[in-house]
Formats: sequence, structure tokens, C-alpha cells
Amino acid sequence: MDAEIISIGNEILCGNIIDTNANYIIKKLEEVNLFVRHISAVGDDEKELINLLKVAYERSRVIITTGGLGPTEDDITFQSIAKAFNLSLVKYPEAEEHMIKILNRIKIDISTSNLKQAYLPEGSQCIINSFGTAPAMILEKENRVIIALPGVPLEMKNLMTKEIIPFLQKRFPNIQYKQSRIIRISGLGESTVNEKIKDFIHEHEHLNIGIYANPEDIQIQLNAIGETPGEAAKMLDEATEKLKEILGDYIFGFNQQSLEEIVGIMLKKQGLSLAIAESCTGGMLGEMITSIPGSSDYFRGGIISYSGEIKEKLLSVPRGTMIRYGQVSEQVAKLMAINVREACSSDIGIAITGIAGPGGGSEEKPVGLVYIALADQQKTIVQEHQLRKDRHTIRLRSARRALNMLRMHLINTQAIKS
Amino acid sequence: MDAEIISIGNEILCGNIIDTNANYIIKKLEEVNLFVRHISAVGDDEKELINLLKVAYERSRVIITTGGLGPTEDDITFQSIAKAFNLSLVKYPEAEEHMIKILNRIKIDISTSNLKQAYLPEGSQCIINSFGTAPAMILEKENRVIIALPGVPLEMKNLMTKEIIPFLQKRFPNIQYKQSRIIRISGLGESTVNEKIKDFIHEHEHLNIGIYANPEDIQIQLNAIGETPGEAAKMLDEATEKLKEILGDYIFGFNQQSLEEIVGIMLKKQGLSLAIAESCTGGMLGEMITSIPGSSDYFRGGIISYSGEIKEKLLSVPRGTMIRYGQVSEQVAKLMAINVREACSSDIGIAITGIAGPGGGSEEKPVGLVYIALADQQKTIVQEHQLRKDRHTIRLRSARRALNMLRMHLINTQAIKS
Repeated sequence: MDAEIISIGNEILCGNIIDTNANYIIKKLEEVNLFVRHISAVGDDEKELINLLKVAYERSRVIITTGGLGPTEDDITFQSIAKAFNLSLVKYPEAEEHMIKILNRIKIDISTSNLKQAYLPEGSQCIINSFGTAPAMILEKENRVIIALPGVPLEMKNLMTKEIIPFLQKRFPNIQYKQSRIIRISGLGESTVNEKIKDFIHEHEHLNIGIYANPEDIQIQLNAIGETPGEAAKMLDEATEKLKEILGDYIFGFNQQSLEEIVGIMLKKQGLSLAIAESCTGGMLGEMITSIPGSSDYFRGGIISYSGEIKEKLLSVPRGTMIRYGQVSEQVAKLMAINVREACSSDIGIAITGIAGPGGGSEEKPVGLVYIALADQQKTIVQEHQLRKDRHTIRLRSARRALNMLRMHLINTQAIKS
Repeated sequence: MDAEIISIGNEILCGNIIDTNANYIIKKLEEVNLFVRHISAVGDDEKELINLLKVAYERSRVIITTGGLGPTEDDITFQSIAKAFNLSLVKYPEAEEHMIKILNRIKIDISTSNLKQAYLPEGSQCIINSFGTAPAMILEKENRVIIALPGVPLEMKNLMTKEIIPFLQKRFPNIQYKQSRIIRISGLGESTVNEKIKDFIHEHEHLNIGIYANPEDIQIQLNAIGETPGEAAKMLDEATEKLKEILGDYIFGFNQQSLEEIVGIMLKKQGLSLAIAESCTGGMLGEMITSIPGSSDYFRGGIISYSGEIKEKLLSVPRGTMIRYGQVSEQVAKLMAINVREACSSDIGIAITGIAGPGGGSEEKPVGLVYIALADQQKTIVQEHQLRKDRHTIRLRSARRALNMLRMHLINTQAIKS
């Protein structure tokens, strides 16, 4: 069934904000088997919006608008919907009541412009927005459904999850049921993943498989459509098992799981603590690790050794070693990992040293050369990487590879333990 | 003059990527006085695209499409443009030649599907894409201009800047000239900025002023339209001067300048070095500072003291002080700043300690309580902040406020010196 999204607001057409609402709505609608075929953005322009609503009404079964529900003059969504479909605006007492309650609570006087928000197109269903004054609306007309949501992402997401998806589920009971799963991979390049799963893709064309690569990881999206939710889930489970056989430990997680989350779970499970020494990433790895709530359970901290002095003074890397091999070298990376582990009294030490560019490269040691070392009680390992692209991507990839190196190490230590 | 953007590709409608191309194009078109009134996204669906092109042709003077220029079956932009406007597809030898050259260079055999890319709608102008095989296209038809660009952001941006903007400048010689400027502010809340510049906005309605707030900073956008570029620039300069009078040092930069860049320039100019101690931000401040190329000129490094042990061992914060006042306290923040400065032999030391949540808060010390301290040779200052929202925002704001505290300090030291 076809759906359509219309984003309303001058701020989008001015290029000052990037509309991420549409993206969220697409994903939510997929859950109830509704597929977005058109996305449009218009400014706060009544004539343009009315035209667009009429065009959308011709081609789509479900139309969702975001934005334009506020109290000011340029908020024109309800009036445009009313005009497009020849409806009058009617006062909804529940909307007015809710608005007065909210405005009283935050001690703001009610103005005529606020009261405007309580007028909805006649025959529509008023949806109270617990996070704001503007109500949302569902209008059913000749087999079409028009839904108007606020543009504030937090409010839109809350209404979408709590009100709109349950409504659509009831309104369009599925004859088929769609489920998706993302398989997340780290440690392999996109072309290698492509090569490895080529046959799998051909054998599973009904899953409409997509491969997406970003500097962080590679994602394989599986989409199963079944007669029942259980059937769709079974198809996903079977495909996932086959991918596990093909890709093994390169698969680190599913759906929204992140590498830092998985590594955190593994460290906690094995009761191990971590410390880091960062050179070219300057704190990025620490930032990622500590983005996980509760990371203080396993993360001790570390040293940002952005200069030779700090490497010498706080990480006890001998000056002679740096002069002989260079600050970006296997030898220095190893010492950083060993000594940060020591300095922070942690079970594992990880170190990154590299040339993020754009300056600082040479023929022998070009921009993008990065050494990542890992030390534990038993041994120290070091990896050499030659990364490409800009400074930000090189730093990002260095930190992601360090996390994946740690993950692979923890898989091994877990295997030895059990 | 009205422009319109059409993004083509299933990947956008699947919600797997967020279309940022439209945003870039809007900004570039503004430079030549073209204003985007519609943005749409469609999948790789010839019928839908043809319909959309016809609608766009009715309402917009300039139509820019992105995507759908590749060699595969689902790349349908040229054929859809040809069908929408009853044109045949014609082989462009220069496009074929360029493609063969590129494919030879990367040692890929030329297939029939590649050759398809050399066929453009008759009468169009072929624009060679130096970053890829797919040529772009400009088609002029009855006072309308239709431009087809590749969807890969790097290729699109390169063609937009080097080819499309110069073409549009010639094609639509401006009678009026638009210039924009962003004034960037740190250290004031959105409502305070609003209050302070209320009168300024009323006196400058012709500048169509916008205020945008994000967790990083507050931006005031000024838009001047003049008869000549010089006139527009003069209007912006005058308005900027007035804003400087009103907002003073809260203005930290203009247009795309970032706080970390400005702070880096100031440190370099004053010949001062910096070290940091991060607790709740876990490396985020270091990551920001080192995102600037050449930051090793002034940034020594620092210590991520995510645990009490590290605060004690590497930052010499006495255990007793932590027990007495808590790890998140004015006293500990001060000692962290003083001692990291000492440990890293830097001119300035900055420290952040706080509760990022969601756990770890108490009635006395709630989530979002953050202390930021700055130490130099003369003195140590500390700020207490009560920040709101989620873990990520609290951490982000902590790091931004630390940068702004440093900026304010550097303004003072500069004033004393000069």
C-alpha cells in the first residue's frame, strides 16, 4: 500500500535544517507494511501546500504531513487541509483544554494565536500531543487517510509510536506481515562482504537484501514478508543462521546494536577492565566507549598522548624509541598499550598512533598510516592499517578498528575461558 | 526565481540514507538568487519520475535532479527526462570517451550497461564528471532549465560548484544579488539571545533574520539582497557591527567557523599550550580539539579520568578529597585542571567532571550537574553547570561549554597582554 510524506516549513527549504523526520516515518510505516513512494517538502505557503495535498490525494492511500501545527501565522497545515478537501475548521474542546493545561503549567498567557491550534478540519480525529500544545490529526476521506503531525522530532516520534502506528495497524489489518533485520559487520571491506555473500543473495532474492557501507561498519538488511509475523521471523532467523555460517565472527551485532555496546557487554561478562592511549584520534575512542551508559563498570580511562612529551612523561615511551622508529610506529604503539595498561591498572590496554593528515605524511609514512596495539597480561599484539579519505574518516576508522580489534580479542579470551 | 529539487533512488525511500544533497543544493542556489520552493524524492520508478518531472516543469523555472545516472537497470533519469519531454536519447561521443578513459584507468571492462551512460536526451548539454563515469546534463526547454546530477555527494558537489553555478550565473544574470552571513554565538541561551536582539530584528526586517539553536551553539542568519554584490555585503557588514555592539564577546565566529577552530587560532596566536582532563565527557573534548588539522601546535594531550583510581593515580587528586566532596565537585574539578596542567607541562589545563546520566544522579547531585575548571599559571577558575536532556546532549554541552570557557579566558589574557 502506498504512503506519502509531506514535510512543511520554510526552514527545510532554506537549507537550515536537514529533514530527518521523513526517514523515521518511512521506517515506522514499513513495520505495518506501508511503503513510502513519495517524499516532498514545501514551505509555509498555503497555495503550494493545497496543490501538493491534492496531488498526494490522487496517488497515495496514506498521507502524513509533519510541521505547520504551531500557533504562529506561518503555521498553515490545518487550514490548508481544510481548504484542499472543502472542509470547515471546527473547535475541538479536548484540544483547547489540553493546550490551556500545558500553557498554565509553564505559566504562559493564552493568546488568540494559541487558540487557533484547537481548530481542526471537521470530521477529523483529534490526537492529543502530550509533549506539546499542538494536537495532531487523523482525517479519513473516501478510503484515504490523511495524518498531520507536529514537526518537532520528539513530539512526532512519540505520536507516531503511541498513536499513529496502532491506528494504522487497526485500519489496514495486514494480509502480509513484514519484518526487517540488520546484520552488522566489522573487520571486512564492502567488496569482500559482497563477494562472500553473492551466492547467498541469489538464493534469497525474496528477502530483497540490501548492503550498506559507511565508515563505521557494513550492514546487510534482510526484509522478510510472510503470511504471519511468525513466518516472517522464521525466514529472518534462517537467513541469519546462514549468514553466520558464511561471515562468522565478522558479524558483531544486529539492528541498532553498536560496536561499543557489544564490546562493553563482553568486557562486563568477562569481568575485564580497559584503559586506552590515544594519539591521532585525540579522545575519539574514549568518547565512543563512554557513550554507553554504565561504561564506568569496565572503562578505567586513559591518556591522550597528542605530543611526544606526553608519550614520554605519562606513557614512559623512551625518547630514543620515538627518535629511532618515529612516534607513528609499531614499537611506539606497543609500548603505549603496555604502559597505559600498567599506568591505569587495567586488564587490557589499547593504543592508537597514526597520521590523520592532511599534513604530517611522508613517502615512507603516508597520511592514513595507523598502528593499533592491544596488550593484556599474556601478550601484546599490534596491527598496521593504511586508511584512506579525509582526516575525520581516518580518525573514525582508526577508532572503529580499535574497537573491533578488542572485540576479536575478547572472542578469543572467552573461548579460552570456556 | 523558483527552483525545484528531485532526489531519485530507492535508497532514500527505504529510509536507509538521509538525503543531504538537497540541503547542499539549496545553499548553492541561494548564491545565485534561485530559491527552492519544492523538494521531492522518488524511487527508481520511471512512471513516477516522468509524472513528477511534468509537474515540476509546470511550476518551476529550474529543476535539478540528483541520482539515477549510473550504469545499472534501475538508473533511469536520462530515459525518464527524454520520455517526459518527448526527446530521443542520443550518443554523446565526449561522454563515451571520458567513460572509456576512466574505466581503462581503473582496469574495468566496458559493458553495454556502461555504454548506456553516454546516451543523453537530444539537445542537452553534456557535462563531464571528472570524479565518475556518469556525465551530468543541462537541458534548456522553453525558458525552463532541467539539470541532472549524479547522486554521489562528492561528484554532485564538485559539478554543482564548478559547472552548474557558473552556468546559472550566466543564464540568469542577477538583477538582485543575495548574500548571507551566519553569526555564531556561544555562552548565551536561545531565549536570552532572542530578548537581546528583539529590537534589532524589528529594525532589520529587510534582512529576513533567522535564529537557529542547536546543542552546539546559537546561530543568527542574516540575508541581504542588494542591487550589487557590494551593496549586499555592506548591509551585512553594518548589521554585523550592530550585533557586535549588542552581543559583544558572545559572538565567537562567522559562517562555518567552529568554536574549536577559533580557540585553536587564539591559542596559537598567544603561543599557549593546552592539556585537558576529562571525566564524564570521556574524550569528547579531546576529539573536538584534535578535529582541527595542526592542533598538535598547541594541544599537548590529556588524561581521561573515568574512574576514581585514575583521578588519584594520574591526576594526584587525593582520595580524601574525593570522599569528602565527591568526584563530581568544585574541589575535584579544580585539582584535575591544576594537576593535568602540571602533568602535561602545559600553559593551560582544563577539566570536566559531571554526571552524564541516565544513572548516577542523586537529589543533592542530579544528572546534568557538571563542573568545568580552568587553570593557568596565575589562577584557577571553576564553573558549575546544571545541564538538561539526554546523556549525549549533556556530554556535548559540557565539552562545548569548556571550549567557550577557554575562549573567554583567552580573550581576557589577550586583553591583558595588549
